[in-house]
Amino acid sequence: MNKAAVLHIQKSQYAFAYDEQTLRIRLRCAAGDLQRAEIIYAVKYDWLTRRSRRRMKKLRSDGLFDYYEISLHVPDSRIGYLFYLTDGTESYYYSEEGLTKSYDFSKGYYNFFQYPYINDADLHRRVRWCENAVFYQIFVDRFCRGDRNKDASYIDRQWNEPPAQKGFYGGDLKGIIQKLGYLRKLGVNALYLSPVFLSPSNHKYDTVDYGRVDPMFGDKQTLRSLVAEAHRRKMRVVLDAVFNHCSMLCAQFQDVMAKGKESPFYDWFIIRGEKPDPERVNYECFAACNYMPKWNTNNEEVQDFLVNAALGWMRDTGIDGWRLDVADEVSHAFWRKFRREVKRENPQAVLIGESWHDAFAWLQGDQFDGIMNYSFTKACQDYFAFSKMSAQQFCNRLNELLMRNTDQVNEMMLNLLDSHDTERFLTNAGGDVRRLKNALAVMFFYTGMPCIYYGTEIGTEGGYDPDSRRTFDWDKARRETDLSQTVRSLSSLKRKKLRGPLGIAAQGDLLIMQRGGVTLVVNNTSEALTYHADGTESRVAAQSFRILERRNRQ
Amino acid sequence: MNKAAVLHIQKSQYAFAYDEQTLRIRLRCAAGDLQRAEIIYAVKYDWLTRRSRRRMKKLRSDGLFDYYEISLHVPDSRIGYLFYLTDGTESYYYSEEGLTKSYDFSKGYYNFFQYPYINDADLHRRVRWCENAVFYQIFVDRFCRGDRNKDASYIDRQWNEPPAQKGFYGGDLKGIIQKLGYLRKLGVNALYLSPVFLSPSNHKYDTVDYGRVDPMFGDKQTLRSLVAEAHRRKMRVVLDAVFNHCSMLCAQFQDVMAKGKESPFYDWFIIRGEKPDPERVNYECFAACNYMPKWNTNNEEVQDFLVNAALGWMRDTGIDGWRLDVADEVSHAFWRKFRREVKRENPQAVLIGESWHDAFAWLQGDQFDGIMNYSFTKACQDYFAFSKMSAQQFCNRLNELLMRNTDQVNEMMLNLLDSHDTERFLTNAGGDVRRLKNALAVMFFYTGMPCIYYGTEIGTEGGYDPDSRRTFDWDKARRETDLSQTVRSLSSLKRKKLRGPLGIAAQGDLLIMQRGGVTLVVNNTSEALTYHADGTESRVAAQSFRILERRNRQ
Repeated sequence: MNKAAVLHIQKSQYAFAYDEQTLRIRLRCAAGDLQRAEIIYAVKYDWLTRRSRRRMKKLRSDGLFDYYEISLHVPDSRIGYLFYLTDGTESYYYSEEGLTKSYDFSKGYYNFFQYPYINDADLHRRVRWCENAVFYQIFVDRFCRGDRNKDASYIDRQWNEPPAQKGFYGGDLKGIIQKLGYLRKLGVNALYLSPVFLSPSNHKYDTVDYGRVDPMFGDKQTLRSLVAEAHRRKMRVVLDAVFNHCSMLCAQFQDVMAKGKESPFYDWFIIRGEKPDPERVNYECFAACNYMPKWNTNNEEVQDFLVNAALGWMRDTGIDGWRLDVADEVSHAFWRKFRREVKRENPQAVLIGESWHDAFAWLQGDQFDGIMNYSFTKACQDYFAFSKMSAQQFCNRLNELLMRNTDQVNEMMLNLLDSHDTERFLTNAGGDVRRLKNALAVMFFYTGMPCIYYGTEIGTEGGYDPDSRRTFDWDKARRETDLSQTVRSLSSLKRKKLRGPLGIAAQGDLLIMQRGGVTLVVNNTSEALTYHADGTESRVAAQSFRILERRNRQ
Repeated sequence: MNKAAVLHIQKSQYAFAYDEQTLRIRLRCAAGDLQRAEIIYAVKYDWLTRRSRRRMKKLRSDGLFDYYEISLHVPDSRIGYLFYLTDGTESYYYSEEGLTKSYDFSKGYYNFFQYPYINDADLHRRVRWCENAVFYQIFVDRFCRGDRNKDASYIDRQWNEPPAQKGFYGGDLKGIIQKLGYLRKLGVNALYLSPVFLSPSNHKYDTVDYGRVDPMFGDKQTLRSLVAEAHRRKMRVVLDAVFNHCSMLCAQFQDVMAKGKESPFYDWFIIRGEKPDPERVNYECFAACNYMPKWNTNNEEVQDFLVNAALGWMRDTGIDGWRLDVADEVSHAFWRKFRREVKRENPQAVLIGESWHDAFAWLQGDQFDGIMNYSFTKACQDYFAFSKMSAQQFCNRLNELLMRNTDQVNEMMLNLLDSHDTERFLTNAGGDVRRLKNALAVMFFYTGMPCIYYGTEIGTEGGYDPDSRRTFDWDKARRETDLSQTVRSLSSLKRKKLRGPLGIAAQGDLLIMQRGGVTLVVNNTSEALTYHADGTESRVAAQSFRILERRNRQ
């Protein structure tokens, strides 16, 4: 047995409460190493008298490791436990003292693993609507212009011109309202909008006033209408919360620029010296952008200011959650307060952090519900777009990603192929629509919430920012294509069937996913496949994947 | 290379801020596996242009794993990093995508490890006085009776009678005040008292009134005097906070007993049904003790009630921290609020959780500072008292325990050989004072705060509760013994020298520790050792260890 491969971590993604009375326990070991993994557990105050022993199930493998799991029903959640591992030759107990040939149960209170108690306030509850959510990300300035009466003097680009770093096209909230029917028809039931609050830029990630919708996009009433119209169509609306930094034009920073340490807002930022000096950049800011000073989210006044801004919009418009910009550079203390207040206002509001990395430290029920799953993005790029991976390697990666977090977090991950911060997936794939379709299928089958970047359904291309932020081609959208049909059918399948446990496997150059009684078979070439209900495959040239609904076997 | 043994976890004890500009990064791999471990890192926004590469130092080994570490000075703390590992034959990059032969730096923003930002509010700051602390745990009813004028009608046991589960001996706060000189002379500079608030029991873990010192022990003024007198002698006082549960006699529970769901306190407890019924125990309680109902620490009113009780005592008496009873069954939400408020009142107040297990989930700077280190207790028992381990195995365990947490947590761990909840160490060691002395020496050298259970210095024995709660033998204390001298000299050494990095090694049956320029050599037999400054050892019968101060080599 590879003893050094065995891993369990208490109170983590390896041991978590899924609901009030369910503990899920995971164990990692070297791939193919174990014949059998068992858990021995008890209410810890009954450890000496009433222990249970149950076999764990091999849930996933990522090539290097196998992951075993068991769900325990625990009406009394004060659980002590350890593992018993057998590889056919050797057997070990696995406790806090590592792998041992024997184990003294009478001293268990010193060294068993424990899950001491499921406290209601700590339980990471799922946001129910996430289970069926199909997200659509809109870069507001580029999606649709609806308001023909607004002051259009800021618009300095023609709708079809390729984007530059600067420049405005006129997209607005009214435009989105007008296209809700289109989106609903596409199967979308949740929108994630780029920032809408007052800001001089086209992306509006440099907020000047958190209390005001940018007049380029509309006003509070337009936002309220958008949410109401979306809700009428059973669609959710998630806004972008840019709380790591603001625009240097915002009133508080301007006050500090004017008054230095005399300003009541001096400590709202992180400044070295008497006054912020944009030349010397003697203050913390986003990246190296002196025009986006960083909020001091350690300061409780700042915390309250930003939390109240968020709560205000929730109350005024009824939005369904927040995407959190540059979330991992903001203090944990801030996010804990933010979550507490947001969930008090609306327990069904979802919180999606922008973190490009393993974000378990933010995903334990006290901060975010999920993140933008850029690790998934990268895996799909490497397999489908760049052919850097075999089907088996892709399968391994998809499995490994699911083991990074608890199940409820996985269910609330925002899975994406691209965004305003990456190249368009289709462009990465050299324009090969079959690869995009295959990747989309995997995204819809995968645990979590698929998110379509606006225009993907019409085959919009684009390199890195600013090219990934082209305007939407509404002429093209009028034509039904194989791609738009694919998005529609996947959306429908997601809403109706694609939930619950997910199986992933690889066979030769095929990746196979099974979920909700549906099987998906894809590969990453332009060569195409069908999949037969009797389980045999044959290569055909007609299409690159087909989804077959199989009779649910229970 | 044993690839499955390699482990790094972002934002954890493997990657933590030690202070405002210092990141400590650890890496685990199979013991003896690596020839060289390097970290490649950069401010993440400069990833493509300004990366650094530094060799990591092998810090510890626990037999199964080696642990590498590096401290990085990070004036800009937005760090991306990965590792480069060489075993002489093979070399791998180690990133979020695991161990790979090659690594595409241009895609690093997708898959490097990251420490995104050191936010002040999240930094786990050390309590400065902990560095030199020598704790002494007092079970108040059994240490010393000072008040001869109090109503003594509750005292139902003679001072020297062996303890039973019930019974009162009359120890009180005035008695502790009278013995502060004794304790100071022993070298103690911090007291941890068993609970002192109103309660019908001798242990007082079933609080009836958090606002009142039990009259058996004194009153608010006595507690205030104790703290003032202790502070005058540069000694700290830490009280026991019993916030998991209370006595069923406390006013709130009595109100619910009387009024059921009509009581405003119904939701302050966790009750199934109309009313609590102690016969059926239809409410959550500590262990299976129906007379200790569990507080619902998910309820914000309960949180505020208990936090305010704690703050009140801090303001009224100036105590230096809290030991937190059954801390791991209380909600994280409660502890986060508790810490915030306690540290706001006094940033130098220490918070020591009672958790008998790996408590990393509570030790990330947002909840406790340290815990009662019962894993250390168990290791000392197994090595010194029960001879169940070799010196090498003990060394391995001591190293492994230090890798469970961040360095600042290690420095604030309460290391103990025994307590009111275990057998006396000397009794576990079959009365062999040499083994106790050796274990004490290790406890004083080890990273963290040594804690002497009252009476240890005079060789008090005792089995499990109630026998471990005997009265202090003040006659015996008058006689200076080899044991009391040992405690005195270790305390002096701890206060003066035993700080900073700790080296632990085993050689044959010897365990060697080095810290602050001092070397300790012990074994776990009654056979004894001296240690010479020139590095040679020789066995002699005179004493089981000797501490030699060595010239500091810098």
